[in-house]
Amino acid sequence: MSIHQHVTELATSAKHASASLANSPVSTRNAALQAIAHQVKVRKTELLAANTEDLLNAKKKGLDLALIDRLELTEARIEAMLTSLSIVQALSDPIGGVEDLRAMESGIQVGKMRVPLGLIGIIYESRPNVTIDAASLCLKSGNAVLLRGGSEAIRSNLVLATCIKAGLAEAGLPEELVQVIDTTDRAAVSTLVGLSGLVDMVVPRGGKGLIERVAAEATVPVLKHLDGICHLYIHSKADVSMAIELTVNSKTHRYGTCNTMETLLVDAEVASMLPSIAAPLVAQGVELRGCEKTCAILSHACNPASEEDWVTEYLAPILAIKVVDDFEHAVQHISTFGSGHTDGIVTACHASAMRFLRAVDSSSVMVNTSTRFADGFEYGLGAEIGISTDKIHARGPVGLEGLTSQKYVVLGNGQTRR
Amino acid sequence: MSIHQHVTELATSAKHASASLANSPVSTRNAALQAIAHQVKVRKTELLAANTEDLLNAKKKGLDLALIDRLELTEARIEAMLTSLSIVQALSDPIGGVEDLRAMESGIQVGKMRVPLGLIGIIYESRPNVTIDAASLCLKSGNAVLLRGGSEAIRSNLVLATCIKAGLAEAGLPEELVQVIDTTDRAAVSTLVGLSGLVDMVVPRGGKGLIERVAAEATVPVLKHLDGICHLYIHSKADVSMAIELTVNSKTHRYGTCNTMETLLVDAEVASMLPSIAAPLVAQGVELRGCEKTCAILSHACNPASEEDWVTEYLAPILAIKVVDDFEHAVQHISTFGSGHTDGIVTACHASAMRFLRAVDSSSVMVNTSTRFADGFEYGLGAEIGISTDKIHARGPVGLEGLTSQKYVVLGNGQTRR
Repeated sequence: MSIHQHVTELATSAKHASASLANSPVSTRNAALQAIAHQVKVRKTELLAANTEDLLNAKKKGLDLALIDRLELTEARIEAMLTSLSIVQALSDPIGGVEDLRAMESGIQVGKMRVPLGLIGIIYESRPNVTIDAASLCLKSGNAVLLRGGSEAIRSNLVLATCIKAGLAEAGLPEELVQVIDTTDRAAVSTLVGLSGLVDMVVPRGGKGLIERVAAEATVPVLKHLDGICHLYIHSKADVSMAIELTVNSKTHRYGTCNTMETLLVDAEVASMLPSIAAPLVAQGVELRGCEKTCAILSHACNPASEEDWVTEYLAPILAIKVVDDFEHAVQHISTFGSGHTDGIVTACHASAMRFLRAVDSSSVMVNTSTRFADGFEYGLGAEIGISTDKIHARGPVGLEGLTSQKYVVLGNGQTRR
Repeated sequence: MSIHQHVTELATSAKHASASLANSPVSTRNAALQAIAHQVKVRKTELLAANTEDLLNAKKKGLDLALIDRLELTEARIEAMLTSLSIVQALSDPIGGVEDLRAMESGIQVGKMRVPLGLIGIIYESRPNVTIDAASLCLKSGNAVLLRGGSEAIRSNLVLATCIKAGLAEAGLPEELVQVIDTTDRAAVSTLVGLSGLVDMVVPRGGKGLIERVAAEATVPVLKHLDGICHLYIHSKADVSMAIELTVNSKTHRYGTCNTMETLLVDAEVASMLPSIAAPLVAQGVELRGCEKTCAILSHACNPASEEDWVTEYLAPILAIKVVDDFEHAVQHISTFGSGHTDGIVTACHASAMRFLRAVDSSSVMVNTSTRFADGFEYGLGAEIGISTDKIHARGPVGLEGLTSQKYVVLGNGQTRR
């Protein structure tokens, strides 16, 4: 059987099974999550052994250390998987509820019921915990799922697949609901992202390269997250100490995350505060790259920025700084060079804050907070599938709701249309 | 300049202008709609003359009569355009409002603001009124729009474009917000649907052929509506007179609409009511095509149905009828042969009604009403861009909200992430 046939068959069986899950009570879905956790505990030795083999292989192949670190399963990481399963179990049921049921003039009542999408494809890299994470979020939201992990984690993932399937069976659900693609061939991804009509959405989780590759090839909808070139704009009416605190937190709280600030914009009128902002950053080892005006003010504490710096997601202790003429200039810079992820203003002026919220077209627009708050957990979503920089379907941090759709329900008692 | 360059330039200028519209108060957008209506009145003679030329050309080319009818503009049809402009003007502003602003534990407040998508492409056939309709819905929702009408209506559409641009200018908005593609070359459509990153969504309005062609080629998201193979299922516990009334209304109220019932499912337990249902349909000249059991009951009033009948959208006075064993069989038939558009149950049993709502995965699922209610106006949306049979972004009848997206707004007073 060809890879294409094999993946298509896995998808077909999963899609076929999905109706039983979509119609299941949340108690059954929660029971499955609990049974999967139990299976992971029971098969821990087997899982660690498979992971050791994956690690040996990865080292033999000379994969880089960061990747090998993410691949490794430890007692603590398995414990974290179990915790995440119980967190998802505790979330309220995202499907089946009816919103906005309203009576119309004709006498019918019209509302919207939240329902699963059907079959989700998840494409991810080395971390085997994504197998459990992604499966649990899809199952909780009533979706079947096709998982395609990295080839380096295949042995770990196959043991986790066994745990998941055994858990599903224990809860009386079909094992086909979660399919782990058991071939490491690249062709499997091409097939998966081309199955429109069968796969309802694909979520790539990994680096920019992976996401771009998937988006370019996909004919099924992709929940995608590209760059996070986030800005903080210090308005002329900003409180100085707040501006300093938010700049430091937005840049240095964590360097490698997509909601970390990459470019700081400062109104010319208050550019004299730049040395006070620069000091704590430099003290933490952050390299500053500024526009001409910034460099003139900061002199030797700052390197000159090139055009390239305005469009770079550093994911590192580097910050680009630009002095802007005014509000319009700041908004224009963000719309020209930003990535539509997360952008914030620091200001004491209410009117400027409200104008910024409307004028900046990003998935999260903030007033007087750290950009680091752009996160599903901080937004109260309870879980996060990813962050979408698209405008269609889901935008910004995506929780379980992003794995669902709404259908209209119409209730009558014999109404006909005139 | 090549067609590709030309269309790309039109799109670029429209997208560039879109920010000014997104940030405009609703009073400005409404003033533009009013000014456009004024321009249509002022240029009525010019418009009718251009339309006469389009009609002459269409007749010369031997286009079919239905198409020529749709192409024709009359005083009454121009009046209808003006009415539709004032209806859209009266709708409340779909953008700028913030929903669900809630306080989080960290102290930040998180809500969602509804915002325009940016630039919408509309691809449509002969009816010139779509030019005004589509432009007004896009402008009201803060979007720029690229219009590509049928080549047979090009002269009418270009006069309408002049009215729109003059109206925009009168309201102080950039004329580039609405671009009518002035070439009749097919290549323009291929370019338009391939401009990802520039065009945010494409809405094809027309026959299935047009929609399939657009969907197959598009790399930008498409709001698409394919078949409407709608079912009404008469459950064993249905009230007989209600079943008859709803069947007749769902089939005969209008034959050519996508929410017209195409297949009737009847529980075997109550199949004896089939003659009472058939009589009024036959009296109205509806051809019945039944499964074996149906034919046995209706004898000469019914032709035998083939497998093809279960997957056909007749859009004509023809009805397929199938006797099903029970509830599960009905749901299974709908999920196998339906198109996910609109499906209803007729039943007096509350539990069966609730089960049906959950089990049937269609954009509208109904209890005890005519399928003909699946419509944006009947659902209280105030306007309808189309009906989506997709699950992503918008599903079912789509109003102005379908032309918008939501972004997160986050308000703080200096919160940093710990």
